[in-house]
Amino acid sequence: MPELRKDPVLGRWIIIAKERGKRPTDFIVEHSLTKGGFCPLCPGNEKTTPPEVLSYGDNNHQPNTPGWSLRVVPNKYPALIIEGQLDKEGEGLYDKMNGIGAHEVIIESPNHDEPFADLGHNRMLDVFLAFRDRIIDLGRDPRFKYVMVFKNYGKAAGASLEHSHSQLVALPIVPRTIESELSGSLSYYRYKERCVFCDIIRQEIKTEERVVCRNDHFLAITPYAPRSPFEMWILPRKHASSYIAQDHDSFQALAAIFSESMKRLNACIPNVPYNFVLHSSPLRSEPLDHYHWHFEIMPKLTQMAGFEWGSGFYINPTPPEDAARFLKEVKV
Amino acid sequence: MPELRKDPVLGRWIIIAKERGKRPTDFIVEHSLTKGGFCPLCPGNEKTTPPEVLSYGDNNHQPNTPGWSLRVVPNKYPALIIEGQLDKEGEGLYDKMNGIGAHEVIIESPNHDEPFADLGHNRMLDVFLAFRDRIIDLGRDPRFKYVMVFKNYGKAAGASLEHSHSQLVALPIVPRTIESELSGSLSYYRYKERCVFCDIIRQEIKTEERVVCRNDHFLAITPYAPRSPFEMWILPRKHASSYIAQDHDSFQALAAIFSESMKRLNACIPNVPYNFVLHSSPLRSEPLDHYHWHFEIMPKLTQMAGFEWGSGFYINPTPPEDAARFLKEVKV
Repeated sequence: MPELRKDPVLGRWIIIAKERGKRPTDFIVEHSLTKGGFCPLCPGNEKTTPPEVLSYGDNNHQPNTPGWSLRVVPNKYPALIIEGQLDKEGEGLYDKMNGIGAHEVIIESPNHDEPFADLGHNRMLDVFLAFRDRIIDLGRDPRFKYVMVFKNYGKAAGASLEHSHSQLVALPIVPRTIESELSGSLSYYRYKERCVFCDIIRQEIKTEERVVCRNDHFLAITPYAPRSPFEMWILPRKHASSYIAQDHDSFQALAAIFSESMKRLNACIPNVPYNFVLHSSPLRSEPLDHYHWHFEIMPKLTQMAGFEWGSGFYINPTPPEDAARFLKEVKV
Repeated sequence: MPELRKDPVLGRWIIIAKERGKRPTDFIVEHSLTKGGFCPLCPGNEKTTPPEVLSYGDNNHQPNTPGWSLRVVPNKYPALIIEGQLDKEGEGLYDKMNGIGAHEVIIESPNHDEPFADLGHNRMLDVFLAFRDRIIDLGRDPRFKYVMVFKNYGKAAGASLEHSHSQLVALPIVPRTIESELSGSLSYYRYKERCVFCDIIRQEIKTEERVVCRNDHFLAITPYAPRSPFEMWILPRKHASSYIAQDHDSFQALAAIFSESMKRLNACIPNVPYNFVLHSSPLRSEPLDHYHWHFEIMPKLTQMAGFEWGSGFYINPTPPEDAARFLKEVKV
């Protein structure tokens, strides 16, 4: 069972994944993407993954057989384990808990060579609906406080399989980054009685200089203080704290703007490695006036080195106004 | 002039290094270490760096000529610029300031092929004394609040030059990570009336299982909740909040334990890429009862991907007790 440990000074949690228990010599081989060779995510290989928890596609199809257009399976090498009670305990001045959680893989396409950015509007919509369906399902488990949805694309961004997929991890605590957003936006709300993200959206639409694209429901911007060159945020224009509470029109519009944003990013920097992360309110929380769900897309173009680790500062060589101009003007 | 920008939700600062102003096509070439070829840090090439601000070695030697054993020069491509007034201003709801600061390179050896880990006790001592001398000097400038000292070794850890060097950045604000340590350790102190780091040291010496090595003045441990496999912290055993306030015996003991720790790490994982960062109290602060200066050494063996970016959680496949055992038992 993995173990969650808390740094006693910072309150930062770490997952010790003992099962992966690495010895010094295990680190010498370079981590590389499986090119060619066997792909456990391809149709026909359904039996090599744990049994699916969700699939879309042909209605008559038997579970765990070909015919699906999208498939969600538990991760074969999970960071956290779904079975067991959540136990918290001390160890002298330290705190730990057992690594209860869920770790799932969303296989976004049956086609091995089709990246997410090329899925197109309708099939991208399915990916966003699958995120929603899994968050709703996992939210019924009272042990979980948050479902973190993310994608690693390309080796530099941490992907270990080539076949297009995203992941989710259900966590027994609200992660630190989301806690910081919740408390930062609450401070702003207490002072201004307005959502800080709504204010950002208003200012960005007014100044235009960091807007990449928009539709009736969403805005894609390069944020004012981006950690990485060509970082983009996609925000719903109407205030909403929870991703899963969207109606179907909104999901349609999300797929449209996400598809366009990814096409623009890829046209600027072909086959760029990137991560995206969904930021939403914690599971089962009531609608929050101060928080605003959104996606953050982080191209992996710079390296995190000693200065960034030590200071929490990021050095970004590309002003977001320049990035927005490139993204807006590129031919797609 | 670089610009410092603040994220309005998280309060996270970003340095926009416009001078490095990168266009999309600049990111396509892979960043790689200069192997062979011209090295601006080697003796004989002193004129290719900005003029030195400190050097050790032969007492008769002329500045910016060969004969030095250690040399500190301003970074030719600084993240922050030393000239100018510190101006803060708003931009609608956003905050920015101009990028005032200092960025220096500590050239640790005249020998191109001599890594830090091989310097040995006496010459490593010079590196630690150079850190002290530069922090004291930069601390006289009231615009600066903190000097971040760090090292990037190996391409995976962000090094762009092969010749052994570390860096320092003087900052107009106390970085977020140090602020978090200061406030975390203050909360603990208010509750317990003890320094949390002193408590960690006591518990680690008692349980032994995470101790790598020690001497009269210092303790090297693998921390209880490490972000990375084989992460190590080096802490002074006697309470002290400021690195620069150490006496000569303490610097001697620091060089000894650092040298031993690096040798052990390299014996476990040959030529491992790593970052180290000095954590100390802000410039000109009085001695603090709740804060305890230390070094953090982070081998670069795992990748930061979407989950880590999004959650602030790290997944570590090597329990620190295992890492400490390997480090302790390895032949050096």
